[in-house]
Amino acid sequence: MELKKYQQQVTSELEKYLRRQKCPEEILNTSMEYSLMAGGKRLRPILVIATCKIFNENTDKCLPYAVAIEMVHNFSLIHDDLPGIDNDDFRHGKPTNHKQFNEATAILAGDSLLNYAYMVISQDMANSPKEELPQKIKVFYEFSKAVDRMIAGEYVDTELEGKKITENELQYIHKNKTGALLELCVRMGAILGNSSPEDLVRLTNYAEKIGLAFQIKDDILSEEGDEKVLGKPVGNDKKLEKCTYVSQYGLQGAKDILDQITKEAIKQLNPYGEKAEFLKELALYIQNRNK
Amino acid sequence: MELKKYQQQVTSELEKYLRRQKCPEEILNTSMEYSLMAGGKRLRPILVIATCKIFNENTDKCLPYAVAIEMVHNFSLIHDDLPGIDNDDFRHGKPTNHKQFNEATAILAGDSLLNYAYMVISQDMANSPKEELPQKIKVFYEFSKAVDRMIAGEYVDTELEGKKITENELQYIHKNKTGALLELCVRMGAILGNSSPEDLVRLTNYAEKIGLAFQIKDDILSEEGDEKVLGKPVGNDKKLEKCTYVSQYGLQGAKDILDQITKEAIKQLNPYGEKAEFLKELALYIQNRNK
Repeated sequence: MELKKYQQQVTSELEKYLRRQKCPEEILNTSMEYSLMAGGKRLRPILVIATCKIFNENTDKCLPYAVAIEMVHNFSLIHDDLPGIDNDDFRHGKPTNHKQFNEATAILAGDSLLNYAYMVISQDMANSPKEELPQKIKVFYEFSKAVDRMIAGEYVDTELEGKKITENELQYIHKNKTGALLELCVRMGAILGNSSPEDLVRLTNYAEKIGLAFQIKDDILSEEGDEKVLGKPVGNDKKLEKCTYVSQYGLQGAKDILDQITKEAIKQLNPYGEKAEFLKELALYIQNRNK
Repeated sequence: MELKKYQQQVTSELEKYLRRQKCPEEILNTSMEYSLMAGGKRLRPILVIATCKIFNENTDKCLPYAVAIEMVHNFSLIHDDLPGIDNDDFRHGKPTNHKQFNEATAILAGDSLLNYAYMVISQDMANSPKEELPQKIKVFYEFSKAVDRMIAGEYVDTELEGKKITENELQYIHKNKTGALLELCVRMGAILGNSSPEDLVRLTNYAEKIGLAFQIKDDILSEEGDEKVLGKPVGNDKKLEKCTYVSQYGLQGAKDILDQITKEAIKQLNPYGEKAEFLKELALYIQNRNK
């Protein structure tokens, strides 16, 4: 499958940005590398590259932005795992950053990764031909807005934890915490691939729908998934009376919506035929995954 | 003195960016405002504006960058104060962000302020005439590099806390943790004021020296300042056996170096006469401040 090839491309691209020189902040750099190379799925940078590829076989232009978004994603994971927020000890089967290093290092590694993303963007802009600048400034602006939404979503999620929440609140958290960044990835790929405004609308719709599908599938797996495959207990949402798609629409209802949303996501890709094959597979993968 | 006028200008400029609308992340916004409006000296944004003014009476162009640097400065204060780093309860005589709100809020408020700085920059770039873009991209690039250095400096400072450190290490910490950002402020002002390359060199020298002076004065105040005026406890550096200019050179030695460095800073401003009067006063203010 093409997924592995994309994952390898992203990882080798990220490696170019690792800082391994001897310096007083060496351990900070090591801790950033630890999280960045911990074996994530690379879904976000892959979305950037795969979307760009629909419009332009040469995806070099979007690579710094794919790298930057993976840095931001990892910054958010490191900070979410901190004792002051989710207090998680493991991620991807390895100790979380603050467990492997310490809390101060994890806070600063997260800070530095967020900032490094903007260093990468500014470096790319400094090396860009003038005619590309308006496009890249648009991307930079959307990038910073999406990260702002992600942090706001994480805040609301944290604030409402353990409380009974409404469907509106659930959707707000999801739309901001996860949706904004996924949408950004697809939009960056499309913009940097020189898509038309109509293409941009279609692909933004696609991104919104796979983001929503991702959330619905999570809710379904939390209800009827295999505990061994998922690696976490099943049925907790019901016990906690959490508001989910399953609690709102029933198990079959949620599955029907997921099926509908996935079809709608794929429909957005119709005009691109073969070229959007990978994005289609990605939508089906989100619907059918068992973890 | 002009300082108050500048401070008021910066504060009213910052107010334009406060987010006070009703929304689920309202408390996050309140906590960002709490730190941003806690009564800081506004030294960094003032440096940007005052330097720009040497070369151009109209300083509008540099205002978004002055705002952005104050956001970054406050992000770094919030995170440095966290229990996982310096564990400070008070700043400017008020509870620190995590004491006033909670740890999760403080982590995310810091993240959001850092990111907001880049939102402000990207927004300004999106609204800039094309001919200004190369200059602003240069500023954006230098901005991200300076923040990177600041975080690295904070990391080294944290890592070496309580250990006996060498003079080289002490200087590395200052140069990165405090110096990089102050230098950036002056350089941004000069670049956005359309200074010549020679001017940029001179003003960078000025910035380096006041950065060093700032740190030395901080060390002196930490040793012999007035707790009530400073709004934080005095004598902690000694208790923690922190390596400072005072521990290295003694109180009088540190004061002599401070005097020398301040004179050298002011010398850089000679070519600008009256126009650099405020920057001269600022160097003297840094030397003589009591908080």
